[in-house]
Amino acid sequence: MITNEIPPGARELLDRLRSGHRLALARAISMVENGKPGFEWLLHEIHRELGRAQRIGVTGPPGAGKSTLVSGLTRELRGRGETVGIVAVDPTSPFTGGALLGDRIRMNDLATDDGVFIRSMATRGSLGGLSTSTHEVADLLDAFGFSRVLLETVGVGQSELDIAGAADTTVVVLVPESGDSIQAMKAGLMEIADVFVINKADRPGADRLAQELELMLHMRMGEGGSAGAGHHGVSLRSVGRSARERAKEAAAQRHEWAIPVLKAIGQSGEGVAELLAIIDGHTGYLEESGELSRRRRARLADRVRGVVDRLLRRWTWSDGRGEELLAGALAELETGELSPYEVGDRIVRAITSSTR
Amino acid sequence: MITNEIPPGARELLDRLRSGHRLALARAISMVENGKPGFEWLLHEIHRELGRAQRIGVTGPPGAGKSTLVSGLTRELRGRGETVGIVAVDPTSPFTGGALLGDRIRMNDLATDDGVFIRSMATRGSLGGLSTSTHEVADLLDAFGFSRVLLETVGVGQSELDIAGAADTTVVVLVPESGDSIQAMKAGLMEIADVFVINKADRPGADRLAQELELMLHMRMGEGGSAGAGHHGVSLRSVGRSARERAKEAAAQRHEWAIPVLKAIGQSGEGVAELLAIIDGHTGYLEESGELSRRRRARLADRVRGVVDRLLRRWTWSDGRGEELLAGALAELETGELSPYEVGDRIVRAITSSTR
Repeated sequence: MITNEIPPGARELLDRLRSGHRLALARAISMVENGKPGFEWLLHEIHRELGRAQRIGVTGPPGAGKSTLVSGLTRELRGRGETVGIVAVDPTSPFTGGALLGDRIRMNDLATDDGVFIRSMATRGSLGGLSTSTHEVADLLDAFGFSRVLLETVGVGQSELDIAGAADTTVVVLVPESGDSIQAMKAGLMEIADVFVINKADRPGADRLAQELELMLHMRMGEGGSAGAGHHGVSLRSVGRSARERAKEAAAQRHEWAIPVLKAIGQSGEGVAELLAIIDGHTGYLEESGELSRRRRARLADRVRGVVDRLLRRWTWSDGRGEELLAGALAELETGELSPYEVGDRIVRAITSSTR
Repeated sequence: MITNEIPPGARELLDRLRSGHRLALARAISMVENGKPGFEWLLHEIHRELGRAQRIGVTGPPGAGKSTLVSGLTRELRGRGETVGIVAVDPTSPFTGGALLGDRIRMNDLATDDGVFIRSMATRGSLGGLSTSTHEVADLLDAFGFSRVLLETVGVGQSELDIAGAADTTVVVLVPESGDSIQAMKAGLMEIADVFVINKADRPGADRLAQELELMLHMRMGEGGSAGAGHHGVSLRSVGRSARERAKEAAAQRHEWAIPVLKAIGQSGEGVAELLAIIDGHTGYLEESGELSRRRRARLADRVRGVVDRLLRRWTWSDGRGEELLAGALAELETGELSPYEVGDRIVRAITSSTR
């Protein structure tokens, strides 16, 4: 049982975390990231203290300027006296095991601010369960007391889904150069966005991309849209701001959310305040429509599934006899005498019957 | 046991697959993709027939022109009388469940060629085990008798690692617009490439990107490089083709692989024949250096891990009582009376002790 496995020092760590020590927070995050003994106990202990921070996901293709936008949002929030925890998920080399140097250097000026905490996380191999650990690090920042938790990741593949699953509001950042809107659809970004930001909007093609996105959001509405979040009443011709505002207002009255497409220039800060206003508007929509509790309930269920799968994998490959059995079968696998399916079957049988 | 669970029709399907019916191939792939009863038995049966096809992975950011390049490679191979099976992994919306329309339409002219088979696969949610199913679909194409299997995917996040894990040779496609080389590193592409292609090389910035990549590959060499594949002797000034050739030759003598950076224009077919020559050169290197058996052995072990994890998940969430137990705890999870860790622990205990 989780509560029977409290390693020495974990209680002190929890106490120091609760009294607001940044070093304790950093240590707790490392514990979770590396799956160190006691990390599940720690997360179990803080579970009741969660739910105060608003969680905002920021995702988009590489080079879209997500980090710059996150920095901008953070400065804006700090100016209002809020505190901000940032989780930046960076793709990792599975060969070297380390995280690769990215945009994080651009956030250096925030690193000295006591109201801000930045943590980079490396994506791991397929056994890593990145999704679950990202959510768990967000929990730690929430429990620590930050009023906002920003989750940032490159949004192609699986990681943007993980971020969307962890966030109350998901911001998808595109740039004119990031390809046409078909590419955006292909990348699966259309389905996770609560807000679209076209960053670097002073570059050519920004208006066209905005119009295409609006059209596609409009078309998608015809297909029924995704759960609880349809797009309404914005035609290709009504891309102007007031039309968007009118559509949003109408949607809000029906407890629906019309996904806005906002143009911004992260570098100069243009559009950042408006983005924050949209995010806060989305929070209002989530609360009033009951969508917030629905999202958080789904998140809890997902967390349980993630915890179970991780426990099962650990029990098989680390604590259990999985690797030993696999090593013993490798020669026969190579000659073709055994198939991976026979070996897999054998391993599952062996480990499940040996649990008693 | 896998061999005890042969559903009606599966034997006939296997027979028809072995005698080269394309429809049987399509059905077998669907069976594997959807995890239909008997799919593991089918894969088990064909296991001994594998290893003849050369597996080539093609990955890169959205909009890099991967599909165009794959089409070009396919036409070149067809001209030489080879047959080609293509697996295109498209990111999917986790909300609608369907694959999104992508570049695949551009391959339509190949679809009527009997020596070519194209299959799009959709990425699933986190329970999907995309990696394992992609490898398994490649197995089916291998067993069917295609001399080459091309695996294509958008390369940011996890999917490019999955493709690299499935391929003998991995081609990473970049474009001048896809951001600077720091972004390429950030995307983790540096570690999986056996060949870099700078596509759309007639656009501005191609030469600069090529030089940056060469420099980075050179720098990486100082860090020791990845297992068995270091980069050698190509300085910033020797980007010209002959220097590259010389470096490759020298590396081949030491049984090492100097990762080439090739410029191409997929649209016009420029560079496609040279890419194929590099790929075949890499195959030679893999065979002579023993790296091919090392890669295939690692792939077999990974496959077993994937099969085991999938069996365990199925046993927990589909056949087992996982969802039932989770549903029963949801109310207490929401009030905070129970943490996901307590519930997870409880589920793992319940299902593992009930297997006997």
